[in-house]
Amino acid sequence: MDFIQVIDLLGTVAFAISGALAAYNKKLDAFGIIIIAFVTAAGGGTLRDILLGVSPVSWMTNMNLVYTILICVLVTFIFSQKLLKLRKTLFFFDTIGIGLYTVVGLEMGITAGLHPFICVTLGCITACFGGVIRDILVNEIPVIFRKNIYATACIAGGGIYFILRKFEAPENITFIVSGISVIVIRMLAVKFKWQLPRPYLD
Amino acid sequence: MDFIQVIDLLGTVAFAISGALAAYNKKLDAFGIIIIAFVTAAGGGTLRDILLGVSPVSWMTNMNLVYTILICVLVTFIFSQKLLKLRKTLFFFDTIGIGLYTVVGLEMGITAGLHPFICVTLGCITACFGGVIRDILVNEIPVIFRKNIYATACIAGGGIYFILRKFEAPENITFIVSGISVIVIRMLAVKFKWQLPRPYLD
Amino acid sequence: MDFIQVIDLLGTVAFAISGALAAYNKKLDAFGIIIIAFVTAAGGGTLRDILLGVSPVSWMTNMNLVYTILICVLVTFIFSQKLLKLRKTLFFFDTIGIGLYTVVGLEMGITAGLHPFICVTLGCITACFGGVIRDILVNEIPVIFRKNIYATACIAGGGIYFILRKFEAPENITFIVSGISVIVIRMLAVKFKWQLPRPYLD
Repeated sequence: MDFIQVIDLLGTVAFAISGALAAYNKKLDAFGIIIIAFVTAAGGGTLRDILLGVSPVSWMTNMNLVYTILICVLVTFIFSQKLLKLRKTLFFFDTIGIGLYTVVGLEMGITAGLHPFICVTLGCITACFGGVIRDILVNEIPVIFRKNIYATACIAGGGIYFILRKFEAPENITFIVSGISVIVIRMLAVKFKWQLPRPYLD
Repeated sequence: MDFIQVIDLLGTVAFAISGALAAYNKKLDAFGIIIIAFVTAAGGGTLRDILLGVSPVSWMTNMNLVYTILICVLVTFIFSQKLLKLRKTLFFFDTIGIGLYTVVGLEMGITAGLHPFICVTLGCITACFGGVIRDILVNEIPVIFRKNIYATACIAGGGIYFILRKFEAPENITFIVSGISVIVIRMLAVKFKWQLPRPYLD
Repeated sequence: MDFIQVIDLLGTVAFAISGALAAYNKKLDAFGIIIIAFVTAAGGGTLRDILLGVSPVSWMTNMNLVYTILICVLVTFIFSQKLLKLRKTLFFFDTIGIGLYTVVGLEMGITAGLHPFICVTLGCITACFGGVIRDILVNEIPVIFRKNIYATACIAGGGIYFILRKFEAPENITFIVSGISVIVIRMLAVKFKWQLPRPYLD
């Protein structure tokens, strides 16, 4: 199990818990909770694999990922009262998930020999698309397109990744620094209510 | 034409009629009815093929399927008054469709050498995804995530399939029994209002 | 750069501007505008590529397309006040886009050796799907399924394409005539409020 697989697994744990909590909040039944957790954790990677032409898509041949998601759902069940009390838990896991998945998507784009622009886009898709589907399925408008530095954090992290690479930083360092950048930028953005420029006079 | 193709065709008929009736209920125009019938019948199989990496996806090289759907739409047109009077017709065709498609999806997963878990998931996707898209397009919230034993019937049918296989039952018997199980479980579930456990105290 | 690539590029320009204007109307932030422009311009082609099994999907290896979209967004920014004053601009670019993309989709289906029916469907998907996603993301119900000759124009153009081919018209003429047919039919349909037959007695 190499470094990128460890990151992928940690991202899966973060997103599966985030998805299970969102479904729990909406009072879905047991099946609904499992589905939402699964889609949140595997949705971004699935779209990435489909776009890249990786087939069968990775979760189909990776039972570790499937079992991880099921265990996370179970853990969320057991600790749900405690997890929900900590109001910021969902946001926290979601943010860690996007940081980790951005790096995984980036890495797969580079392996496929794609342009840095496209690699960053793939990082973004891997990180954000699961959350978008989760929001649509539990009937919340995805905030990603409206008022939040969300994908922008992934893009900034992707930029940092390529800058570090240019200076030939060691691979593991590059991964860790750019992943953490995504997490920190997103947290600061929410804390200080950063917004993207909007080209309107009002 | 082998056994699995016959089942696939019957499932297509059931779902195309179910889709055409749903579109008819919503008073869509002729094009809208054809699209909804097509998406309901071919949507699940399309997602399954994309996830498995079968390309072009099967309906593209299977004109029989395309003609079958168009004929079903025509038949639904002609008999729509009668079909709509029988209130339960839509539910009936929908249920037969999920039974048949579950088996088709299972079979394709096994052929691709995937884990039984993943095969059952593929059966579920083949059976349920067309209906989910249909519901979204005609602007009904997909009931699948909320209050209905729907996907659960597919999962149970998938379990029965693998149990029969373990006991080395003949292939055709295995297909028929597990397909019928899905149909019967779903019908009983609706009749007796079975629900999945929901982990809430209210 | 051959003829079909030129058409593809022109379609991309038309759809990117159409998408950017729609996002601008909804007062999305800078990132939101870029995403909607991108999805509108590349969404139909992406689904077409996925269904055909072209991978990675074409925009991933075609940086010209990516840069074209970014330039279009910038141009739309600068001229947005003027573009929005011309009320029909959005409709105009959208219509040109569907004309051009229909032909591109048709051509790719023929290259893949598919049945004319399927080729027309691919033309339709290439032309219409980006707009459908755009409508869903900016929270407008896609009109395509309800009251508009939209996809029907693509289908008619596809029919004309195959008729011209049967009479062995030169390839470029065939492209241009069928593309323009789509545009003209759509414009006439909106002007004279053509509707598809609806099989209801009211």
